[in-house]
Amino acid sequence: MTKRKICVVITARPSYSRVKTALEAIKNHPDLELQLVIAASALLDRYGSAVNYIKKDGFEITAKVFNVLEGENLTAAAKTTGIGILELSTVFDNIKPDIVVTVADRFETMATAIAASYMNIPLAHIQGGEVTGNIDEKVRHAITKLSDYHFVASESAYERVLKLGENKEMVFNTGCPSIDLAANILSSPDLDFDPYEKYGGVGDMPDLSKGYWVVMQHPVTTEVKEARRQIEQTLTAMHRMNEPVLWFWPNVDAGADATSSGIRTFRENNDISNFHFFKNMEPDDFLRLLINSKGLVGNSSVGIRECAYLGVPVVNIGSRQNKRDRGTNVLDVVYHAEDIFGAAEKQSQQPDRRKSMVYGGGDAGIKIAQLLSTLPLQFHKTIAY
Amino acid sequence: MTKRKICVVITARPSYSRVKTALEAIKNHPDLELQLVIAASALLDRYGSAVNYIKKDGFEITAKVFNVLEGENLTAAAKTTGIGILELSTVFDNIKPDIVVTVADRFETMATAIAASYMNIPLAHIQGGEVTGNIDEKVRHAITKLSDYHFVASESAYERVLKLGENKEMVFNTGCPSIDLAANILSSPDLDFDPYEKYGGVGDMPDLSKGYWVVMQHPVTTEVKEARRQIEQTLTAMHRMNEPVLWFWPNVDAGADATSSGIRTFRENNDISNFHFFKNMEPDDFLRLLINSKGLVGNSSVGIRECAYLGVPVVNIGSRQNKRDRGTNVLDVVYHAEDIFGAAEKQSQQPDRRKSMVYGGGDAGIKIAQLLSTLPLQFHKTIAY
Amino acid sequence: MTKRKICVVITARPSYSRVKTALEAIKNHPDLELQLVIAASALLDRYGSAVNYIKKDGFEITAKVFNVLEGENLTAAAKTTGIGILELSTVFDNIKPDIVVTVADRFETMATAIAASYMNIPLAHIQGGEVTGNIDEKVRHAITKLSDYHFVASESAYERVLKLGENKEMVFNTGCPSIDLAANILSSPDLDFDPYEKYGGVGDMPDLSKGYWVVMQHPVTTEVKEARRQIEQTLTAMHRMNEPVLWFWPNVDAGADATSSGIRTFRENNDISNFHFFKNMEPDDFLRLLINSKGLVGNSSVGIRECAYLGVPVVNIGSRQNKRDRGTNVLDVVYHAEDIFGAAEKQSQQPDRRKSMVYGGGDAGIKIAQLLSTLPLQFHKTIAY
Amino acid sequence: MTKRKICVVITARPSYSRVKTALEAIKNHPDLELQLVIAASALLDRYGSAVNYIKKDGFEITAKVFNVLEGENLTAAAKTTGIGILELSTVFDNIKPDIVVTVADRFETMATAIAASYMNIPLAHIQGGEVTGNIDEKVRHAITKLSDYHFVASESAYERVLKLGENKEMVFNTGCPSIDLAANILSSPDLDFDPYEKYGGVGDMPDLSKGYWVVMQHPVTTEVKEARRQIEQTLTAMHRMNEPVLWFWPNVDAGADATSSGIRTFRENNDISNFHFFKNMEPDDFLRLLINSKGLVGNSSVGIRECAYLGVPVVNIGSRQNKRDRGTNVLDVVYHAEDIFGAAEKQSQQPDRRKSMVYGGGDAGIKIAQLLSTLPLQFHKTIAY
Repeated sequence: MTKRKICVVITARPSYSRVKTALEAIKNHPDLELQLVIAASALLDRYGSAVNYIKKDGFEITAKVFNVLEGENLTAAAKTTGIGILELSTVFDNIKPDIVVTVADRFETMATAIAASYMNIPLAHIQGGEVTGNIDEKVRHAITKLSDYHFVASESAYERVLKLGENKEMVFNTGCPSIDLAANILSSPDLDFDPYEKYGGVGDMPDLSKGYWVVMQHPVTTEVKEARRQIEQTLTAMHRMNEPVLWFWPNVDAGADATSSGIRTFRENNDISNFHFFKNMEPDDFLRLLINSKGLVGNSSVGIRECAYLGVPVVNIGSRQNKRDRGTNVLDVVYHAEDIFGAAEKQSQQPDRRKSMVYGGGDAGIKIAQLLSTLPLQFHKTIAY
Repeated sequence: MTKRKICVVITARPSYSRVKTALEAIKNHPDLELQLVIAASALLDRYGSAVNYIKKDGFEITAKVFNVLEGENLTAAAKTTGIGILELSTVFDNIKPDIVVTVADRFETMATAIAASYMNIPLAHIQGGEVTGNIDEKVRHAITKLSDYHFVASESAYERVLKLGENKEMVFNTGCPSIDLAANILSSPDLDFDPYEKYGGVGDMPDLSKGYWVVMQHPVTTEVKEARRQIEQTLTAMHRMNEPVLWFWPNVDAGADATSSGIRTFRENNDISNFHFFKNMEPDDFLRLLINSKGLVGNSSVGIRECAYLGVPVVNIGSRQNKRDRGTNVLDVVYHAEDIFGAAEKQSQQPDRRKSMVYGGGDAGIKIAQLLSTLPLQFHKTIAY
Repeated sequence: MTKRKICVVITARPSYSRVKTALEAIKNHPDLELQLVIAASALLDRYGSAVNYIKKDGFEITAKVFNVLEGENLTAAAKTTGIGILELSTVFDNIKPDIVVTVADRFETMATAIAASYMNIPLAHIQGGEVTGNIDEKVRHAITKLSDYHFVASESAYERVLKLGENKEMVFNTGCPSIDLAANILSSPDLDFDPYEKYGGVGDMPDLSKGYWVVMQHPVTTEVKEARRQIEQTLTAMHRMNEPVLWFWPNVDAGADATSSGIRTFRENNDISNFHFFKNMEPDDFLRLLINSKGLVGNSSVGIRECAYLGVPVVNIGSRQNKRDRGTNVLDVVYHAEDIFGAAEKQSQQPDRRKSMVYGGGDAGIKIAQLLSTLPLQFHKTIAY
Repeated sequence: MTKRKICVVITARPSYSRVKTALEAIKNHPDLELQLVIAASALLDRYGSAVNYIKKDGFEITAKVFNVLEGENLTAAAKTTGIGILELSTVFDNIKPDIVVTVADRFETMATAIAASYMNIPLAHIQGGEVTGNIDEKVRHAITKLSDYHFVASESAYERVLKLGENKEMVFNTGCPSIDLAANILSSPDLDFDPYEKYGGVGDMPDLSKGYWVVMQHPVTTEVKEARRQIEQTLTAMHRMNEPVLWFWPNVDAGADATSSGIRTFRENNDISNFHFFKNMEPDDFLRLLINSKGLVGNSSVGIRECAYLGVPVVNIGSRQNKRDRGTNVLDVVYHAEDIFGAAEKQSQQPDRRKSMVYGGGDAGIKIAQLLSTLPLQFHKTIAY
C-alpha cells in the first residue's frame, strides 16, 4: 500500500515547537510519509533559524520557501502572504501531498490554507477554535472555514469550531501537541545545561542559582505604534524586580522592529546587568528553563498552554491571549509597569504550583497522526447549518 | 468634513452587475468618495471586458490590477490570488481607503479580503452567508471571518452569518443590489434592442420573435475533469429543444477552457443553427433579455437571484447554487441531457410567472451606501461566542 | 563520476523546436544529466501546448512553471518575467543545476537568465548575437551580458558576441540546432501525413495536391497598435493569391489578441475557403510541410533559418527579422498587401530552390552537448575591454 | 507645454547619494517633472532608511515599493528582483513616465530596467560602462543593453559603452553626479558637526581630534562564504592600527548577514574601544567626514570616485572596484590584515593629497537634467554593428 503523503508547513519557530511531537508521530507512522516544508521566519537567522533545530532533530526538509518581505509596515505581512501562496502552490504541485497540515494562526499560515484549499488538497488545521481577539483571530477562524479536518486543543475550542458550522465527524479535540513535549520533560525536569554557555546571547550573565524570571513578549500587530511603549513597561517592571531575567527576542511581525529598538534604547539608558537576552532555545531546553524558573512574564501562548500543564506561574500581559482557556497558574495584567511588577511579586509568593490539563494530556501527536492515516480524503464540504 | 473613502474591488463581470447600484449610491452619497479598483478577469477581453462597461456607465477607475495567471489547472487560481494580494496591498497603501468592500465569493476576492484585513483597513463584505457547497463556499465563509461589516442578501444568509459568530450590530440584511437593477428594469421591461446587432457574437441568428431560451453555465471548479461532460449535456438538451438559444460564454475559472472547447467541438459536429453565442451583455440589456425569454437554463446565480424577483422560469443545473434560497421559479436538475430537456419543457408549460422577494426589495444599494457612511470605523473584532 | 546537471528552460513552442536536437544530445551524453523545465506559453493550450509534444518526444519534465499573466498590454510581459524569476529561482534552488541553458530572446527568457546568474549558476545562451531591431534585441544582448557561455548560430553572430566584450574562449559558433532537424528531414522529405486529419484546425480544407502556401506571422511587440493592420495586409494578399493557404496561429505576446481578432474579423467578412488555420504542428511535420510548399509567408525566423538550409522560398514581411543573416531564398517586403502578393508571385516563378549553410551544417546539438560536458564551470567574468 | 515626466527609481542609500544633484536639477528644470520612486533597501530601517533623508532633503515621494525578500542566500536577490518587476510595472502603469532613470548596477536595479524597457518606456542609465569584475558587472552591462540613453561617469566608461554597440548620439560622458556634491562640500570642508552626537551609532567614542579612519566594506556577492573571513581581516588590521575608526555598516546584499555577524563576534572577543559603528550618514556629512579623515579603508566605490576628486587617501581592498578608473589617491590590497595595515600606514605617510578629475568636474546633475529635457523620446534601438 502506498503511504499517505502528509505535508506539514512550518512557518515559525514557535509553531515548530508546538507540533514537534505530531511531526514525530507522522514520521514514525507506518501508513504515513512526512513531507516537511519550512517557510517564512522559520528559515531566517534573525528569528532563530528554526530550520536548524528541525534538521538537528532528525527531520528531513522536503522544500524551503523564502517569502518574508522586509518592511516596517503592515503591508509587508500581506505581501509575505501573497508570495507564500505563489511559492507554496508550486511546491504542492510538485510534491502532490494527500493532506496538507497548517498550524495555528500566524498571518502567513493563511498562505498554506489558501494554496491547499484552492488546489483541492484536503487541509487539516491544528489549533483552530481558540479566541484571542486580535488579527490572529480573524486569520484563525478564516482558516477553520478553509479546512477540512480540525485538530483542536481544548474543549472550548472544540465547541467553537462546531458552532462555526464545521461537521462534527471532522472535528477532534486531540489536545495540543506542545503538551506532549511538556509531559516528556516533566519526567526529568532538571536544568541540565548552562543557558549562557549553550546559547550565547547578549548582555550580562546574572547568577541563576537563586532563581530567575523568563520573559517573552511579542508585539501585538494591530497596535503597531504602541509596541514600543508596551515593551518599555515590561522592561521597567523587570528592571525594578532586580532578579535575574532571561529575555527572549520577539518573533517577526509588524512591530517587531519597534520592540527590538525599544529594548536597545532601554539597554543604552539603564544598567540592566540583571538581564540576559536570547534569540531562541531548543524546545526541550526552553521547557526545562521554565520549569525551574520563578515564572514567565509576557504575552506568549506558552504561558497559557505548556505552563498550565507544568504549573509554572505566569504574568500574562495585555490582550494577546485574551480569551484563551487558562489554568489557575496565570495572572492577567495590562501593559503597565506597576501592574506587571505587582503580579510578578504576587506569583513569587504562591506556596505551590498549580497544574491543569486544559490543553490535553500528552498524547496529541499520536492522536493526530492516527487521524491523518484514517480520515477519508475529501476537500468538498458545506456548512452544517 | 472629509468624505469617507470607500474602495470597492471588482474582479469579474458578474460581480460588477451585482453591485452596480451600490456603486452608484456610494458615488452619489454626499459623505462618501468612491475608489473603484478593477482587477482579475474584469480587465480581460476574453471574459467580456467588464472594465469597458464600467467606464461607459460613468465610473472613474482608481486603479487597475492585472493578476490572472494563465494555466490549465487549479494551481493558477491559487497563484492568481497570491499575485492579487501583492498588487492590492500596494494599491491600498497608495490610496489609503477608510473601508474596503469585497463582493461575494469568487476565489480571487480572497485577495481583497486578505490585503485589507492584514493592513488593518475595515472590510465590508457584500453577499456573505449563502450556501452553495463548493469551493466558493469555503471562500465565502472565510471572507466572512475576515470581514468587519456584512451586507447580506437574504434572511437565511443573515441567520448564517450570525451563527458564524459575527456581532449582530455589524450584520445587515440589505437585500441584494442586483435586485435593485431588476426592479428598475421591470418598470419598462420591453426588449428595446436587437441582441445580434448590438452585441455581435458568433453563430447563426435564429428568429427571436416567437420566443427563445437563455443559457449561462459556468464550470464547477472542484469537478474540473467533468466540466466537458457537463457542458455537453446542456448542449445536447438545448439542441434537441430546437428553439432559439442565446448562449453566454462562461467566466474565467479552472475548467473554463474545458467548457470552451466542449462548445467548440459540439459546434463542429452538430448543426446548431438554433444557437447563438455571446461573450457578454450590459446588465440592463441582459435582464431585459431574461424577462422576455422563455427561461434561463444553466447554473448561474442570476437564475436564483434576479430571476426570483422577475419571475423568470429557471432550469438550474447541478450543485453550483446548491443550497441558496430560491423562489418557486426554479426547477433543479442534474447534469443530464434528458432531465434538462424535461425541466425546460415543463417550465414552458407554466401558465404564469412566479415572483418572490427572497433576495430583497430593490433598495439594497442605497442601504449599503448609507451604512458605509455611518458605521463606526473598526477592524478589531472577536468571535461572538 | 557524477554527471553534470544541465537545466534547460523552455518557455515557448518555437524555442522547443529550435533546440530539440540539443536536448536529445544532452540526454544521450554519458557525462550529462538533462533537467528540463517547461514554463510560460509552452505549458498553455492556446499556444499549442508544447509540453505535450515534449513528453511525446520522450523527454521527462523536471518542473513546470506557470507564469504567464493575462493582460491586453505590455505590462503583462514585464509581470510575467517577474513571476518567472520568483518561480525559477525556487526551482533552481531545489534541483541545483551545474549549468542553466536559456534559449534565444523571447521576453520571458530574461527570467531564466536573471535567476541563474543572480544565483551564481553558470549560464549558457543559445542563439545570442543576432540582430533584429526590436525589443527582442534588447533582451537578446542583455542576456548575452548575463551569460557565461555562448552557443551562436552564424558567423556574424559570433563576431557580434565578441564585439560585445565576451571572452573568446567562451563563444562558439555551433550553428543552430534547428538546422539539425532540417538536415534529418531532408533525407526523406515526403509529406507523409494529412495535415487536416492529423492536426484538425479550423476553416475549409482546400486541396493541397497542386501546391499550397504556409503563413506564420507574429505580432511585433513594439508596434502593438499596428498589429491589426499588419495582419490584415497579409490576409488580403493571400486571399487574393487564391491558392491553398495553411495559416499558423501566432504566439503569445503583447498584441497577440489584436492578431487573433484581426483574423476572426477577416474570416467573418470574406469568403476565405482557400484558408485553413492551425494552432501548431510537430516540428518534423512542420518542416516537411515547408519543404513541400510553394513557400513561407510572414515574419517567422523559420523563414530565415531552417528555410535557408532547406531552400524553401520565403516572403519575409516587416522588421522582425530585420538584420538577421539570410540566404538567397528570402524576399523582403513591408506590411503592404500589394508588395506581399507581388513577392509571393515572384517566388512562385523561381526555377529552382536556393540553399545555404549560413545557420550551420546539422550538428549543432551534438556540439552543444559536448561543450556543456567539458567547459569549465564558472560564473565570474569580466568584459574583454 | 506639458513637462516631461522623469521617473527616477532609487533602491539604496548609496544610489541616492550618488544622484542627489541630478534629482535636484531635474526637480528645478522648467521642462521636467520629477517622479521619485523609492524601493528596496532605501525604504528599510536596517539599511539606513534613505527615504527619510530623501524627504528631509525636500523631495516628494511619488511611490514606495517594498520588495526586499529576506533570506540568507543568493536566491533572495533573484526573488527581490522578481518582486520588484511585478511592483514597478504597476507603478509605471499608473504614473506613466516619459522617461525612467535607473542608477548604476545593484542587482535590484535590473527590475527597473526590465519593467521600463518591456513597457516601451525610454530608459536612461546613469553610470554604465564601468568595470568591476563581479556580478555587478553582469548587471551593469545587461542594463546598458536594455537602456536607450547612457549618462556615463568617465572617459573609459564612455568608450566601453560605445564598444558595447550603443549608438553614439545616445551616450554622454556627464561625469558622476556624486562629484557635484563633493565639489560643493569642498568649498567649505570643515567638520561642522559631532558625528557621535548627530548619528548615535554603537561602540565607544574615541577622540577624533587627532585624526581618524573611515571604514566601509561591503560583502562581495559572488564570494558569500568568504564574506566572514574578509571582514575579519579588515577588523584585525584596523584594530592593530590603534587609531580611531569610524566604521559604516554594510548594505543589504547576499552575505550582509555574514558581515554583520563577523563584526559582532569580533566585538565580543576583542577590546575595540577605538571603533565606533554607524549605520549611515547624510551624504554631505559623510563627505566632510572623509575630507577630514586620515583616509578611507574598504571596498566602497566612494573611495574610487568622490575620494579621487577630494584627494582623500584610500586603501581599496579586494576585487570589488577591480577595474574602475582610479586616481593616484588609491592603494590596492587583497583581503589580508597585514597588507591592509601596511597600506594604511603608507597612506598615513603621504606628504600631500592627490586629486583628480577622472569622474567629472562637478556639473553632472545639471548636464543630465538638460539631456533628459531634450533627448528624443524613443525606446526602439538596434546594435551599432
